[in-house]
Amino acid sequence: MTAAGVTDSLLAEGLSRIAEEIDSAFDALLPVPNDARARLVEAMRYAAIGGGKRLRPLLLVSVAEMYGVQRSAAIRAGIAIEAIHVYSLIHDDLPCMDNDALRHGKPTVHVAFDEATAVLAGDSLHAFAFEVLADPATSADPFTRVELLQTLGHASGAQGMAGGQMMDMVAETAEFDLQTVTRLQQLKTGALLGAAVEMGAILGRIPPEGRTHLRGYARDIGLAFQIADDLIDHEGDAIRAGKAVGKDAEAGKQTFVSLLGPDRARDQARMLLEQAVGHLGQHGREADLLRALARYIIERDH
Amino acid sequence: MTAAGVTDSLLAEGLSRIAEEIDSAFDALLPVPNDARARLVEAMRYAAIGGGKRLRPLLLVSVAEMYGVQRSAAIRAGIAIEAIHVYSLIHDDLPCMDNDALRHGKPTVHVAFDEATAVLAGDSLHAFAFEVLADPATSADPFTRVELLQTLGHASGAQGMAGGQMMDMVAETAEFDLQTVTRLQQLKTGALLGAAVEMGAILGRIPPEGRTHLRGYARDIGLAFQIADDLIDHEGDAIRAGKAVGKDAEAGKQTFVSLLGPDRARDQARMLLEQAVGHLGQHGREADLLRALARYIIERDH
Repeated sequence: MTAAGVTDSLLAEGLSRIAEEIDSAFDALLPVPNDARARLVEAMRYAAIGGGKRLRPLLLVSVAEMYGVQRSAAIRAGIAIEAIHVYSLIHDDLPCMDNDALRHGKPTVHVAFDEATAVLAGDSLHAFAFEVLADPATSADPFTRVELLQTLGHASGAQGMAGGQMMDMVAETAEFDLQTVTRLQQLKTGALLGAAVEMGAILGRIPPEGRTHLRGYARDIGLAFQIADDLIDHEGDAIRAGKAVGKDAEAGKQTFVSLLGPDRARDQARMLLEQAVGHLGQHGREADLLRALARYIIERDH
Repeated sequence: MTAAGVTDSLLAEGLSRIAEEIDSAFDALLPVPNDARARLVEAMRYAAIGGGKRLRPLLLVSVAEMYGVQRSAAIRAGIAIEAIHVYSLIHDDLPCMDNDALRHGKPTVHVAFDEATAVLAGDSLHAFAFEVLADPATSADPFTRVELLQTLGHASGAQGMAGGQMMDMVAETAEFDLQTVTRLQQLKTGALLGAAVEMGAILGRIPPEGRTHLRGYARDIGLAFQIADDLIDHEGDAIRAGKAVGKDAEAGKQTFVSLLGPDRARDQARMLLEQAVGHLGQHGREADLLRALARYIIERDH
C-alpha cells in the first residue's frame, strides 16, 4: 500500500470505529425510562445515535491516544462533547432558528417529534454532557474532570458556540467583514473543535504550556472546516450533505466564499491544512490520524 | 420583638440580601461584549437580573452558612443554580412550550427580544452555570467543584428538571394519578430545590451520610412548594403572581389541587411544612432561616 493509502485506511478505520463506539455509548448511557419521560429520551436518542461524522469525539480520542490515555475514558469525554454538538444542532434546526427539516438525511427532531420536545431534548443532552464529565468513570482524578468541565463549559456558552450562533443570526442583517466572519466561525465551530483537542490533552495530563501546538492545529482545522462547509453550502448537493444547501446566500449572510470567492476560499483552506499539519511537526507516526483528519476536514464533500 | 417577629425579620433580611447579592454577581459575571454577541448577553441579563425570589440560592447559602462556608463561595454556587432556574424559565415560556408573555411582571424574553435569542440566551445561561461551578473561584478544592457539578447536572437533565418538564407536557393529554403528579413535581421543581440544599452541604464538606436530614427537608419543602404553586394558580391573581394564572385547569392538567381539592391540598402543604421543620431538629438557631424559609414557601401568595 502507498503512504497515502495507509493514511486513508487509518482515517476510514478511525471514522468507522468511533462511529460505532459513540453510538453504543449513547445507547448504554441513555436508557429509555418506563414513564412519561420516555418520549424525551427517545428524542435524545433519535438525535444522538446513528448520525454525524463524530469528528469532535474522533479529534478528542486521537489526541488522547497520542498521549496514552485509556480509550474508554476518552470515549466518555467524546460522548460529552458530542452531546453538546448534538444539542446545538437540535436547537439550531428549530423553526425560530434555521428552520431546517433535514439533518443527517433524516427529519430533524422538531419534525419527527415536536418543537417542545426538541427544546427539552436539547436541554437534556446539554445537562447530560456535564453530568457525564463530572462522573468519576470519566477520570478518577477530580482535577482532570473539573478541567474538562471548565473547558467544555467555556466552549459551549456565550464566549463560545452559543455566542457564535448569535453572531450568525446577526449576520443575516449585518454586513460582516472577513475579520468578523472569522471571529464568528472561531466561536460557532472553532470553539468546540478546539475544546475537543484540548480535552484530549487534558486527559493526557499535558499542562497548558505543552498544548500550544495543539491549539494551533485546532485553530487552523476549525477555520478550514468552516471554509469547507461554506464551499459545500455554495456548491454541494443536499442529498450528499444530508441537509439543505445554498442557505447562506439565500439568507444574505457573508461567508468565506462570498467574501473571498470560491477559488481563494479553497486556497485558504489548503493553506490552513498545511499550517495545521505543520503544528504537529514534533510528533511522529502517532499523530498520523490527526494529520489525516485535517486533510479529511477540508477535502470532504459533505 | 416576638419570636415570630424575629423569624419574620430574619427571612425578610435574608430575601432582600440574597436578591441584591445575586443581582450584583450576575451583573459582574455577565459583562456585555462589544460585538455582535451583545444582544445575547443583554437577553441573558434581562432574564437573570432583577427578578424572582432567589429561593434556590437562598436555600443553598443558608445551608452553606449553617456549616460555616464562606459566603462568597456560596454565592457563586447560588449563581450557578439560579442560572439553571432562569434558563429553564426562558425555555418554558417559549411559544412552543407554555407560551407565556409575562414573567416576574415583565415581558418574557422571547417577547422582549425574539424567539431565537430566547433559545440561545437559555442555552448560554445553561453553559454559564457549569462554567461558574468549574471555576476555582467557587472552591479551591476540585473534589468539591466536581461534586457540585455532578449534583447540578443530574438535577437539571432528563433525570431531573427537564424530565419533569417533559412529564408536565404529557400531563396535558394524560390522566395522571396522585403518585405520578408527585413524581412529576419531584422532578420538575423538587430536583433543583433538592440540589440547592445538597450543594450547600457539599460546600460545607458534609459527607453524603450526614445529609439525610437535609434531603428530607428538601423533599418536603419541594412538594410543599409545588402545592403552594398549584394553589396560587387555582386562586391567585396574575398581578401578584407576576405571571398568568389558572393555566393548569385550562390545559386540563391534573395538579395537587385538582386531585385533592384546595382544602386537602392546603392541609397537605401544612403537614409537609411541619415534617420539613422536624428534619432540622438536630440544629439550633443556626437553622432558623431554613425553618422560616419552609414556612414562607407554603404561605407565600406569589
